[in-house]
Amino acid sequence: MVPSLAELHPNPGWAASNHPITDTVGKHCILELYHCRADRLDDEAFLRSSITQAVQEAGATLLQLISHRFNPQGVTALALLAESHLSIHTWPESGYAAVDVFTCGDHTMPEQACQRLIADLQAGDHRLGSFRRQTPEALSEQDRHPR
Amino acid sequence: MVPSLAELHPNPGWAASNHPITDTVGKHCILELYHCRADRLDDEAFLRSSITQAVQEAGATLLQLISHRFNPQGVTALALLAESHLSIHTWPESGYAAVDVFTCGDHTMPEQACQRLIADLQAGDHRLGSFRRQTPEALSEQDRHPR
Repeated sequence: MVPSLAELHPNPGWAASNHPITDTVGKHCILELYHCRADRLDDEAFLRSSITQAVQEAGATLLQLISHRFNPQGVTALALLAESHLSIHTWPESGYAAVDVFTCGDHTMPEQACQRLIADLQAGDHRLGSFRRQTPEALSEQDRHPR
Repeated sequence: MVPSLAELHPNPGWAASNHPITDTVGKHCILELYHCRADRLDDEAFLRSSITQAVQEAGATLLQLISHRFNPQGVTALALLAESHLSIHTWPESGYAAVDVFTCGDHTMPEQACQRLIADLQAGDHRLGSFRRQTPEALSEQDRHPR
């Protein structure tokens, strides 16, 4: 049976615990994009399309996508995912975009989303880093043994 | 004259540069909240209200706010700001919430937003860290001398 969108929360229904900290569930990727194509950084529709594709390639599920184009230039777009979120903020006049991708669970590949954005925006240079969110251990255990 | 929302991009209209890297513009706060009140973590309306207040106390401008409640529990909310974004992802069953606040420009106080969320969710424990986004130098210069 295909789950409803509301059922796609990556870690539903854990039991209570004493919340020791682990670092194995939430992954937060930070991507800086330089020397991008300025026209694409300023193209809200293009960015929405690229994000949609990036989320799909990451194996994630897009629930909502919002965006805002600034005056005279620049776009922010935020994607609400079943697995957390993706954001992009662009400065076309500097060829720069700031991206973050936060995903929970082990079925997503946030780096794939990053690679899609690097390619679509034709970034001449980039820096990609990531860190683990310090989620309670109960989340980690449930993630390894999902219902 | 009051600027339109579309004019609130923090760094409009920079000239081109050779994009040396600086670290003085974009600040990204990462907040882990533990032992929060479960009922509030699962209350989408409460979270939207708290975020709205948090953004205001940070001196930022809220442009759009979206949220999604998962089944059986958990909420994600994303706030699109003139100065970048705020996100929260909650796991009521573990008393845990993952927050990030990314702000550009020197007029915002993202830590204030974090403090509002810590208080509103009555977090028994938390970890707050931050790092600088590696934005091009041109953004930094313009931020110090805004139009």
